[in-house]
Amino acid sequence: MTVAAAGERETLRRLLRHLPKGDTLLGPGDDAAIIAAPDGRVVISTDTMIEGPDFRLEWSTPEQLGSKAVASNLADIAAMGARPTGMVVALAVPRDTPVDFVEGLARGFAIGLEGLAPGVGVVGGDLATSPVVTIAVTVFGSMDGVPAVTRAGARPGEVVAVAGDMGRAAAGLRLLFAGAGAGAGAGADADADVDAGTDAGDSAALTTKLIQAQLAPEPPLAAGVAAARAGASAMMDLSDGPLLDATRLAIASEVTIAIDSATVAGDIATLLPPLRSAFGLDTDAAKDLASRLVLGGGEDHSLLATFPADVELPAPFRAIGRVVEQQDAPVLVDGEPAQPDGWDPYIGIE
Amino acid sequence: MTVAAAGERETLRRLLRHLPKGDTLLGPGDDAAIIAAPDGRVVISTDTMIEGPDFRLEWSTPEQLGSKAVASNLADIAAMGARPTGMVVALAVPRDTPVDFVEGLARGFAIGLEGLAPGVGVVGGDLATSPVVTIAVTVFGSMDGVPAVTRAGARPGEVVAVAGDMGRAAAGLRLLFAGAGAGAGAGADADADVDAGTDAGDSAALTTKLIQAQLAPEPPLAAGVAAARAGASAMMDLSDGPLLDATRLAIASEVTIAIDSATVAGDIATLLPPLRSAFGLDTDAAKDLASRLVLGGGEDHSLLATFPADVELPAPFRAIGRVVEQQDAPVLVDGEPAQPDGWDPYIGIE
Repeated sequence: MTVAAAGERETLRRLLRHLPKGDTLLGPGDDAAIIAAPDGRVVISTDTMIEGPDFRLEWSTPEQLGSKAVASNLADIAAMGARPTGMVVALAVPRDTPVDFVEGLARGFAIGLEGLAPGVGVVGGDLATSPVVTIAVTVFGSMDGVPAVTRAGARPGEVVAVAGDMGRAAAGLRLLFAGAGAGAGAGADADADVDAGTDAGDSAALTTKLIQAQLAPEPPLAAGVAAARAGASAMMDLSDGPLLDATRLAIASEVTIAIDSATVAGDIATLLPPLRSAFGLDTDAAKDLASRLVLGGGEDHSLLATFPADVELPAPFRAIGRVVEQQDAPVLVDGEPAQPDGWDPYIGIE
Repeated sequence: MTVAAAGERETLRRLLRHLPKGDTLLGPGDDAAIIAAPDGRVVISTDTMIEGPDFRLEWSTPEQLGSKAVASNLADIAAMGARPTGMVVALAVPRDTPVDFVEGLARGFAIGLEGLAPGVGVVGGDLATSPVVTIAVTVFGSMDGVPAVTRAGARPGEVVAVAGDMGRAAAGLRLLFAGAGAGAGAGADADADVDAGTDAGDSAALTTKLIQAQLAPEPPLAAGVAAARAGASAMMDLSDGPLLDATRLAIASEVTIAIDSATVAGDIATLLPPLRSAFGLDTDAAKDLASRLVLGGGEDHSLLATFPADVELPAPFRAIGRVVEQQDAPVLVDGEPAQPDGWDPYIGIE
């Protein structure tokens, strides 16, 4: 049954039954919702995923799309050091979309919220028709009395750290473009195709995990609140890649970020077997590609933060470099200026 | 220059220079924005306007679209009795959209906010590409210590009242479909074509005003806060027409709403000259159409509220009926059950 045949009321009814209500002062069904803002401030971020530029229906299950929309939005709340408190969704789908697809999206929202922000509900939304699937999510958070961690607070001498994966989502995207994981929901079962004990099996399992990291990332977002409480001086989420995002943080803070590539050697090594096998690369070429993905690849939605040198990094943050005095280059890798590849939705990648 | 040629950064720069910043604790440019929620609660509503089902680019200027997006969203905040405090916009446009169009939308957001919520800013947003222009707005408000006015509080014996126009936006839509006001921005100058002193001139001026009511409504939204403070027991905005919206309010409150059609005679009379002239109707047929538009037409975004009988209605609320004990029919007009035309975005009007 399509949404046009079911009608708005029935589609909404089937959608709402999957969504967590969460803690809300007034939930869906009135002109507006009301959520608590205990310290008198509300943190707000909005982000849209659109079929075509942002995802392909032949790669993603609706559950993965819903889950990814939640993760990418919650990452912006976590990046301020805030605790998520609510979410609204403006959803538009083609008239011939099966209601099952919309229910799958709703299950994806629920899965994402349960995993990353238990107790947080979808407090409102909007349902419309469009030629392409459009998922506009706005999320809310509370600082709970702590100052917000902006991009502008990094100071020379501090430690630069990351919580979460680097390069896995971008590697997953390359593998999808290369034809790995054909069929919707390629990474839905990260344990599929595992033939443990053989190299080919390890590589296949890892391929599936990398695709999963692209289609339904699960960044360690609780680390955002922990970072704020530990005294992080600046923070942002890694949506466009460490080099570009670190450039933004460096410019906002008027400092230079010096990354030590030895700290990400493990991230690079992890990507080598699937990249070698998918693209038939020799070791040097695979290392080169993996390095570019780890430092330049986006959509991991991990957290990039800076901490005073005497702070013990809260788990799972790990140091990747230092904040130094502002130089001509906002970002250095092993002492050399590093130019990020640009990302512009109107021009495309690079 | 198109948005694809200008790129995201330049498009954003040109867009942002038109938008009011408003009072915000942290504005655009970081991972999230922060706004004040003085009484520890935040009122939230989200609504999307999509090219095709919601508007046509050959009828509306971008300024009108931006202004309407603001008005229709702020109406949901006003309908709770809340004071608007902020807004975020997720905007998606085709790659070949002129940057001028995006700037026009931004000017429309500014015009709408200045007119309906002075001091309120666009605190964040998102820019993307889509085959159709998609404007997803989420608005925020503060109850400032007063209880929210939901749809569920109406009690028998109370007065039913409306602040704002009834039927004008729907009449404007009929006139647009009939070919009145060809060319984008048909109602942009409501004083155009006025030939005062002649019937034809009056009708032409009113046609322009009705089209303006459809393309860029200016409902009296400050009345929402006034209603809450005066003791309104239930309230909602008139987005889908008085009959359908009153039905929703009646069901939520478990009452019946009894409308007295004599109270809207003036609204009906206002519509007669342009409807007669546009559709070549005789007086009875024009009255019949005007009555259906006044009681059934949507998108005025006026406020429908119920007040205890002893409350003096705050301006510009005017009584249109009474709340009575719940009957089989949620809404009566002059004592007779009134069936609203349905509105379903997946099925279409009626």
